[in-house]
Amino acid sequence: MTIHFTISRYLHKNLILESIKPCLTFTFATVVSLFSLATLGNDDVTQWVDPFIGTGGDGHTFPGAVIPFGMVQLSPDTAAVSRGIDPQAQIYKHSAGYHYDDDTITGFSHTHFSGTGHSDLGDLLIMPMTGTVHIQPGTPDNPDAGYRSRFSHDNESATPGYYSVELTDYKIKAELTATARTGLHKYTFTENGKGHVLLDLTASIYNFKNKVIWSDVRVIDPQTLLVYRSTNGWAKQRETYFAIRFSRPFDDIELINEDNNRYRCNGCLSKDSKKNKPSTIVNSAIQFTAGKAIKVLTHFNDVNKEPLLIKVGLSAVSRKNALENLTTELPHWNFDQVRQQAKQQWQQQLSVVKAEGDRAQKRQLYTALYHALQAPSIYQDVNGQYRGVDGEIHQTTDFQHYTLFSLWDTYRALHPLLTYIAPEKVSDMIQSMLVHYQQSYDKMLPIWSFQAHETWTMIGYHAVSVISDAYLKGIQGFDTELAMKAMIATANNSRYDAIDDYKKFGYVPMDKLSESVSITLEYAYDDFAIARMAEKMGHKTVAKTFFERANSYKNLFDDDVKFMRGKSSQGKWNPDFDAEEAKLMGPFTEGNSFQYTFYVPHDVDGLINLIGGDKAFEQRLDLLFNKELSHEKIKDHEDIAGLIGQYAHGNEPSHHIAYLYNNAGKPWRTQERIRQIMDTLSSDQPDGLAGNDDVGQMSAWYVFSAMGFYPVAPGDLSYSIGAPQLPHISLNLNNGKTFSVDAKHLSTANKYIKSVSLNGQPLLRSYLTHSDIINGGKLKFIMSDQPNKNWATSQAARPPSMSLKNKN
Amino acid sequence: MTIHFTISRYLHKNLILESIKPCLTFTFATVVSLFSLATLGNDDVTQWVDPFIGTGGDGHTFPGAVIPFGMVQLSPDTAAVSRGIDPQAQIYKHSAGYHYDDDTITGFSHTHFSGTGHSDLGDLLIMPMTGTVHIQPGTPDNPDAGYRSRFSHDNESATPGYYSVELTDYKIKAELTATARTGLHKYTFTENGKGHVLLDLTASIYNFKNKVIWSDVRVIDPQTLLVYRSTNGWAKQRETYFAIRFSRPFDDIELINEDNNRYRCNGCLSKDSKKNKPSTIVNSAIQFTAGKAIKVLTHFNDVNKEPLLIKVGLSAVSRKNALENLTTELPHWNFDQVRQQAKQQWQQQLSVVKAEGDRAQKRQLYTALYHALQAPSIYQDVNGQYRGVDGEIHQTTDFQHYTLFSLWDTYRALHPLLTYIAPEKVSDMIQSMLVHYQQSYDKMLPIWSFQAHETWTMIGYHAVSVISDAYLKGIQGFDTELAMKAMIATANNSRYDAIDDYKKFGYVPMDKLSESVSITLEYAYDDFAIARMAEKMGHKTVAKTFFERANSYKNLFDDDVKFMRGKSSQGKWNPDFDAEEAKLMGPFTEGNSFQYTFYVPHDVDGLINLIGGDKAFEQRLDLLFNKELSHEKIKDHEDIAGLIGQYAHGNEPSHHIAYLYNNAGKPWRTQERIRQIMDTLSSDQPDGLAGNDDVGQMSAWYVFSAMGFYPVAPGDLSYSIGAPQLPHISLNLNNGKTFSVDAKHLSTANKYIKSVSLNGQPLLRSYLTHSDIINGGKLKFIMSDQPNKNWATSQAARPPSMSLKNKN
Repeated sequence: MTIHFTISRYLHKNLILESIKPCLTFTFATVVSLFSLATLGNDDVTQWVDPFIGTGGDGHTFPGAVIPFGMVQLSPDTAAVSRGIDPQAQIYKHSAGYHYDDDTITGFSHTHFSGTGHSDLGDLLIMPMTGTVHIQPGTPDNPDAGYRSRFSHDNESATPGYYSVELTDYKIKAELTATARTGLHKYTFTENGKGHVLLDLTASIYNFKNKVIWSDVRVIDPQTLLVYRSTNGWAKQRETYFAIRFSRPFDDIELINEDNNRYRCNGCLSKDSKKNKPSTIVNSAIQFTAGKAIKVLTHFNDVNKEPLLIKVGLSAVSRKNALENLTTELPHWNFDQVRQQAKQQWQQQLSVVKAEGDRAQKRQLYTALYHALQAPSIYQDVNGQYRGVDGEIHQTTDFQHYTLFSLWDTYRALHPLLTYIAPEKVSDMIQSMLVHYQQSYDKMLPIWSFQAHETWTMIGYHAVSVISDAYLKGIQGFDTELAMKAMIATANNSRYDAIDDYKKFGYVPMDKLSESVSITLEYAYDDFAIARMAEKMGHKTVAKTFFERANSYKNLFDDDVKFMRGKSSQGKWNPDFDAEEAKLMGPFTEGNSFQYTFYVPHDVDGLINLIGGDKAFEQRLDLLFNKELSHEKIKDHEDIAGLIGQYAHGNEPSHHIAYLYNNAGKPWRTQERIRQIMDTLSSDQPDGLAGNDDVGQMSAWYVFSAMGFYPVAPGDLSYSIGAPQLPHISLNLNNGKTFSVDAKHLSTANKYIKSVSLNGQPLLRSYLTHSDIINGGKLKFIMSDQPNKNWATSQAARPPSMSLKNKN
Repeated sequence: MTIHFTISRYLHKNLILESIKPCLTFTFATVVSLFSLATLGNDDVTQWVDPFIGTGGDGHTFPGAVIPFGMVQLSPDTAAVSRGIDPQAQIYKHSAGYHYDDDTITGFSHTHFSGTGHSDLGDLLIMPMTGTVHIQPGTPDNPDAGYRSRFSHDNESATPGYYSVELTDYKIKAELTATARTGLHKYTFTENGKGHVLLDLTASIYNFKNKVIWSDVRVIDPQTLLVYRSTNGWAKQRETYFAIRFSRPFDDIELINEDNNRYRCNGCLSKDSKKNKPSTIVNSAIQFTAGKAIKVLTHFNDVNKEPLLIKVGLSAVSRKNALENLTTELPHWNFDQVRQQAKQQWQQQLSVVKAEGDRAQKRQLYTALYHALQAPSIYQDVNGQYRGVDGEIHQTTDFQHYTLFSLWDTYRALHPLLTYIAPEKVSDMIQSMLVHYQQSYDKMLPIWSFQAHETWTMIGYHAVSVISDAYLKGIQGFDTELAMKAMIATANNSRYDAIDDYKKFGYVPMDKLSESVSITLEYAYDDFAIARMAEKMGHKTVAKTFFERANSYKNLFDDDVKFMRGKSSQGKWNPDFDAEEAKLMGPFTEGNSFQYTFYVPHDVDGLINLIGGDKAFEQRLDLLFNKELSHEKIKDHEDIAGLIGQYAHGNEPSHHIAYLYNNAGKPWRTQERIRQIMDTLSSDQPDGLAGNDDVGQMSAWYVFSAMGFYPVAPGDLSYSIGAPQLPHISLNLNNGKTFSVDAKHLSTANKYIKSVSLNGQPLLRSYLTHSDIINGGKLKFIMSDQPNKNWATSQAARPPSMSLKNKN
């Protein structure tokens, strides 16, 4: 998803074949693999992760160093700009700071979103330099005008927890690694003479004018700085503290306040700086400056003697905590040790999945897993303190606090996937949502929140889906009654969007709120998720109420046009209806009626009935995939991308649709579509993602779909079967059991399921249940080049729907 | 003092006799007095306090509601301006927000300095309105253009803890009272119809452009708001949180962000506000806004039915703490009860002093005491949390944390006075300075600090004087070894001004730092204070070192010109020497050599020797008082005010000088000068202060001098005797003893001491000791119209000097 707020538009995906790059990466990965064989053995799966996948096209991933769910993402920025919109910055394209198209780097900053459509972060840009000292970034067209350096993908590499690049203009090799809360830079200067390191506190991602509210820098000693920065971006007044330590003392430092007549504290370290003390209100010997445009230059003599390392601890709470995070997690200067630890954390987290397949398949799969393990990310200091959505400092005692809930995206597949690949984190993530509810002034579960801020981005209240799905799967460790209370309160909050009208009318009237159809449909699904959990908890009245609300989708289905359609509070259908149009402030959210009419994931059978039965439904699905969508209809939305007809794989509302053929008794059509999507909209190249990865949702779609199934309606505990894409994938579950998927005879031609068995017994339905997976077992597909039109066609064999199975 | 940073200059003191004002105030005070007789009895001393004294001229005091040492000073502002310099604002004149010359009020804000020359604060301006609603302040010349209202001193009154005014333009009676951490407003609307209350978050004192860094407002319920504001003023990024509660629900509210195309959340309370929701990134039903130019308008119907009360809790820590401070200290809506409590706190604190005299004398004395009990002020929430100078949140367990250390001013007389009139607070104030030392990144005791910020304003390290004086007087409850460590560390800090050069050369060379002579002289005195405490503690080496440093003053006395004079690091005297010149960046701080040559308070005998003996010294003193100081010589300094010749009673460097005749064996000359200063530079009128009250220092000078003695060199435990100004003053000491001063035959003519006895024994010296006071006793002066030229003339009878008595 993205939000309607973009400045530049990246229309033409980079289709130039980057033929040499994968080979280089592979070579480098092989070296790392050999290096670490002693500890990782032959099962080193980190070798298959290519952090560059998604950094091209509209993937919006970053290539830098991070550990699983880490607070710090230390990564190169290629378009970060100082103070205001650089006309060349293309801010949508640079949502993750870096884009593979670029050939200059502005520096390395410590926080990045993975795959978002809107953006923020890019905190504390650091850039080493030699030669002429610059404090302005320069432009991509004229990097010599600033501190920006040229670079080449030939001299760049990235593996989980590690990134390296040669800054061509400075002949500096830059290497990055990270712990949970710290970033570690290693700069190897290859020429004699002086070196310089710039900290540009004005640089940021999605950097509008006056984004920096305030910042300050204090020199603690000639190796240590404390930095504060507050920015007004997607999050209002987001505050970050940094403790920065250099591996050796700088020989001089300049604190530059560009708003203060570009005052430079030249030679602050020399005693002579005091003699110009301008008044009794200044102590110019105190190395501190504060303002909205602060830059720091540190200078080093004889830089080529040994590499210069810089370690940076982050905190959202205080300078003290930033320093404590730094000294706790990074007490030493052993870069290789940190890099190895990061790699081992990835190896441990990634080896939950064991896959066989060709190189490209494994690269896609493990990179998708890698991208699915980025967030929600740690948002708590080593001492347990964190900043809550109320702006207050809180202390955890019994859970790890997480942030970054891109829920409109991630409730669909990412959170269901985490219940298998990182189940030990799920309860803490839910507890983080529950404290958000408790701490929020609006008494709401998160909508789209990060770093102590609710952005109110996108629609629905999908936190309820995440909680319900986890609860029904038996994830424990959170207060379930509190959770139910929070879910009900959220779903009934009068202040949020149009909930009161939704309850009153049974739909959101289009004259009350824009995006009224999408909102109604997503509320209805969310209500199903609440009902399912309430039902299981024995809260019968609640379950009944919300199962009824889950039928609200029917109120916006116009039987005349057979589409979901806007309706006014007077009950009048939208007179300007156009099933293909996706306009801003219209009845749909980043989509059109063609796509959103399919958004009844919890009651596909009910939808099939409305549309007119299996055949009509299949035809409608085909129309979706076949009818070309003109650019004119979607010109407001750069996120409606990755098109097959009207199907937009690059945006979330389409993600479940290919699986719906199963519900019409045509599973081979789903199998075809999955392969079609895989073949045309996914690769192991930098531009291999069809759209924003959206904090792992696109990647989670890939992981599930590659295994051969997908959670169409999280909370119903079923997975619609598609078509496996790798010959073998197994999940090492944390209950000690293994669920394995084998696809015999899988090939380019053999995209169809001939038959499937579970634990040796024929599986005659086109869906799996959570029990099938969590109890361990062997799912074996026999693939064929011919569709099996007899398998799983009966009503009983189709994936469950609320109207058939769950309605009380 | 003030600093060299002023924009406007208030050249002509208001000399218009405000003949009717005192009578009105007196009438009102009498009413209050009668009202409270039941509790306060005949000893109600609050009746003598006139908070308007000092609000005219250059006094810079505020007339509003405060309790002793309270965190909140809720007071009217007459020149507060929004966003940038109002050319009419005369910011120096309005350092306390209010000036008695003015005839319009912009509103009532919650924080004010008392008597400072530089300024800041004025947090959260609130203004009630009727009729046309304004959100801009208008100008004094054209109040109808804005929310500013005319007012008249005829309809204005103030007593300790209470302020009232009629806002003429709106026919609203505004009343203010306060607790330690809250302000309570009472607005009585006298006409039918709608009323409005504006919160102007852009208003501030010393309001430069872009002073507001960030602010936000959140509507919690229709009676409660939470507000945050961060400003960049004298303190960098000072953060304040406010919890605001109205006594009844507002009927509508508008959150105005002037930077956001003047977006108004019109009718936020109505459900229709949602339909224009501009995108999925906004939840316009959430009543929250943030930015740099926020104003809030609340609207009330039928305002004349009952008064509207607004209570506001402040915190420097968090919104949560602001709310906790509010609900803890102000759980009810009983305005009169709060007002009575404030009055009783003043009565208790003021009745430490019992005075007899005429009405004007008592008004001056008790108002001076009132002004001496304003600060250091509480800076800690009810839960014990406070923000430290490191920006971190700290928790006290065993002391009350104070802020506002205007030490260059207040070490002279205010802090010594507090050891008698508020001794129970002194240890906590010292502990507050010690945690400042521990928490400061520079490991320094405060210089001029307030609200978690060190401003580095003015010179010296006078915290050592405050601590030494208190320690030597037996004040306990703080860690004395820590204190000594802090004092030594501060006095040796290489990063502060020119301490290293001072130690190396024995003086601060004028080519190393401006104000070098003043700095040297004040260091020397401070070193004496350290030595005194170290001597008492038994740290002999430390004492020896600092007694030696205390002689540094001798290094800048030029025997040729017999003045203190700038000297270079090459040992060359300043070639541009002019004893009368007080130029910016010159060798003196807000003063000239005439004044600063006398700044050897700890070794006046040593100074007398340098100048050439008693007679030469007396002549020099006479020259100081008699030689007219041309405006041209002091044009850089508006704070060099209250002149008698070169003597500037309006600024601190002169404060001890009138007492120095005693040291030359001419005590009757001191007696003459004290009376001269009292008669010409002090009155009970609004312009009754000769210059900035400087957070109570001017007032403390008055209190001591009115009693007949003054601490020339705090830490030497002696008080130089001047001339009592009231027939009777007694101090009720907290050890249960009473020290009383009687001045028999005192009259306008009888300004001289004929004789003096202590506890019935003739007192033959021109000084008192701390023991004389603290042990209780009766000091009786017999006054005369003729000087007694035989009393206390001998060397032994003169006040002590380091070179005679204290040198080891």
